Amino acid sequence: MEFHISNRMSAIRGSAIREIFKFAADPSVISLAGGNPAPELFPNEQLAEIAQDLLKNQPVLSLQYGVTEGYTPLREAVKARLKEKERIDREGDDVIIVSGGQQGIELSTKALVNEGDTVIVEEPSFIGATNAFRSYGAHLVGVPMDEDGMNIEALEKAIEANDNVRLIYTIPTFQNPMGATMSVEKRKALYEVAKKHGVVIIEDNPYGELTFDGTKLPTIKSMDTEGLVIYCGSFSKILAPGLRVGFMCADKAIVQKVVVAKQVSDVHTAMLPQLLAYEFMNRFDIDALIVKMRANYAHKCATMLDAIETYFPKGVFHTTPKGGLFVWCDLGHGIDTLKLAPTCAANKVVYVPGNTFMVDMDKPCSALRLNYSTMTDERIVEGVKRLGVIFEKELETRK
Amino acid sequence: MEFHISNRMSAIRGSAIREIFKFAADPSVISLAGGNPAPELFPNEQLAEIAQDLLKNQPVLSLQYGVTEGYTPLREAVKARLKEKERIDREGDDVIIVSGGQQGIELSTKALVNEGDTVIVEEPSFIGATNAFRSYGAHLVGVPMDEDGMNIEALEKAIEANDNVRLIYTIPTFQNPMGATMSVEKRKALYEVAKKHGVVIIEDNPYGELTFDGTKLPTIKSMDTEGLVIYCGSFSKILAPGLRVGFMCADKAIVQKVVVAKQVSDVHTAMLPQLLAYEFMNRFDIDALIVKMRANYAHKCATMLDAIETYFPKGVFHTTPKGGLFVWCDLGHGIDTLKLAPTCAANKVVYVPGNTFMVDMDKPCSALRLNYSTMTDERIVEGVKRLGVIFEKELETRK
Repeated sequence: MEFHISNRMSAIRGSAIREIFKFAADPSVISLAGGNPAPELFPNEQLAEIAQDLLKNQPVLSLQYGVTEGYTPLREAVKARLKEKERIDREGDDVIIVSGGQQGIELSTKALVNEGDTVIVEEPSFIGATNAFRSYGAHLVGVPMDEDGMNIEALEKAIEANDNVRLIYTIPTFQNPMGATMSVEKRKALYEVAKKHGVVIIEDNPYGELTFDGTKLPTIKSMDTEGLVIYCGSFSKILAPGLRVGFMCADKAIVQKVVVAKQVSDVHTAMLPQLLAYEFMNRFDIDALIVKMRANYAHKCATMLDAIETYFPKGVFHTTPKGGLFVWCDLGHGIDTLKLAPTCAANKVVYVPGNTFMVDMDKPCSALRLNYSTMTDERIVEGVKRLGVIFEKELETRK
Repeated sequence: MEFHISNRMSAIRGSAIREIFKFAADPSVISLAGGNPAPELFPNEQLAEIAQDLLKNQPVLSLQYGVTEGYTPLREAVKARLKEKERIDREGDDVIIVSGGQQGIELSTKALVNEGDTVIVEEPSFIGATNAFRSYGAHLVGVPMDEDGMNIEALEKAIEANDNVRLIYTIPTFQNPMGATMSVEKRKALYEVAKKHGVVIIEDNPYGELTFDGTKLPTIKSMDTEGLVIYCGSFSKILAPGLRVGFMCADKAIVQKVVVAKQVSDVHTAMLPQLLAYEFMNRFDIDALIVKMRANYAHKCATMLDAIETYFPKGVFHTTPKGGLFVWCDLGHGIDTLKLAPTCAANKVVYVPGNTFMVDMDKPCSALRLNYSTMTDERIVEGVKRLGVIFEKELETRK
């Protein structure tokens, strides 16, 4: 039978990353395609201890239905942490626990965006977010990224040129896929532009804690006097992604609608993962864990950048991230990295082609995203080396 | 600031049940309002043992990102169980793990229903489902419930009288809120009507295993030759709801779209809960647990029905469930059970007013839903007794 598919879901395709992951499942393949955190840093022994204790001694709390807003002590701990670490402390805001940062983006879109309304995104941007906007029939408008974040003039022009602009989506810190960080000046300017035009900002900050040298820029949310900013955070990159625990901080009026949307989506985030996140912070030192992560990723990133300098053809552009999980490269010369991907996969190395992160995914793109967080140093170097050979050859044909 | 709320979410209100739960949190209140399973049946010791083992010995599996479709061994176990227990085994179908049965309903709606399209529901029906449909701007049409399930003639008239009918939502077994079970004849007739008109059925079956005497009627899905039926199931009522693990079985074309929708919603269902569900079935005897649940609920239901016969005014209608968690009563005489609820709450007993389960929630309703699964025998009897006094008084004023 031919099924009637909704308009909102007809437009959307599964992400190309998923297809690449099929290659990546082969252990002989060097995957620079993922966005997974380093598994050797999971505090699994401590979580095992907590899980056993909770299930044994607090069975009803761990296994019965919970409230949609999330486990109250976890919400309070997140509020306290946001205040301490990110200077986020606006009267009139509230925090809701969500099933991963992704859900904060999806539910906000459901609550605020009609089909045909405009959502402005950085270009390139995170496919999970752009697909969430697409899945509600939003009209996506891309604003180019500079190395210090979104181009603010282009942003203002985009707001003025489009009707019903409902959201500006940004990952200001260690952006996915570019690894770029928005300057303080641009953060302020972005907030002012949004305020002037009455547009809500989604500030997605899953990587903010993963700063290599400990430097942290103020979040846009910390500048938010009007309740314009929806701040999405997550335990995925500072604890473990398989738990699917994230949080969202926004004006109470928005949180209220998101709570109703969450109630019909998954009722509440699974209790045991919420309790594990809370009790890990309560019983252990999450900041000490984060310090370890920063060192691990800083080292791996440096390894990758060294390898790129050594093995990639001269003149290939790459970003120099100060945190997070990703390096962005651009081969230029009209090369289509999507078309090049099968050759690389045949040589047992995979990346994510740049077109994945664009508003128009059908347009050829010469850029690509590399991830350094899951592979060993050796494999990072070997992977980059293999890519270098293929890229060199491809560039030769263009001369 | 005034936020722009989407049309789809403007129409929807938080469920009245949530407000009632605020009373129910007071331990001195007898709550016959919930839908929670009996917490004394949670196999928490076994789950504690499994959780500790998994987190210690399989940290990457337990804590890293998983695939959107769900943990493969769990999907296979669910498929095997559906075949064995429910005779669900259609070539061309697939199973996806979802974050509770609720998510199967929500994602199916997102994938199949445009704003303004019609969704037909039993009346009364489960508020979580009706609100999920409302949250996508569906036009809800109610079909009256008989004691043996949906009125099929009224269903066919509703399909013929409305445009773009995309879904028929039914809980054929131990329905929420009525506790009623659809006869085999009606199941067949419902399927034939849906097939004739090319409308997809959502068969929601969270309570099917909780049959008091072990009798099970064939699922509608087991009759599905065309791939018309989306079957939603859950571990919430046979293991623990706080895990948020459910499953959906449907034609592959529908599952594919639901996978894309799930990917942008919560990426995947939390790994540890999925692993707990799988390993509990693998290492322990879930059927033995279900047998215990059946006996527990059968006993509590009988206790409640006895109390109703003893303490409710003569002539009050009530259903006689053969499984599940709910009894439905109707006071008649134009009584508005929503208006009566505060008096009952003041007397420390709460129920869910019938209007909650209707398409038009603003229309006064003389019915109410009672739950027997969470309270002790004593409190069930005492709660019904208190309600009986209030209902008696209210009926007196109508004479």
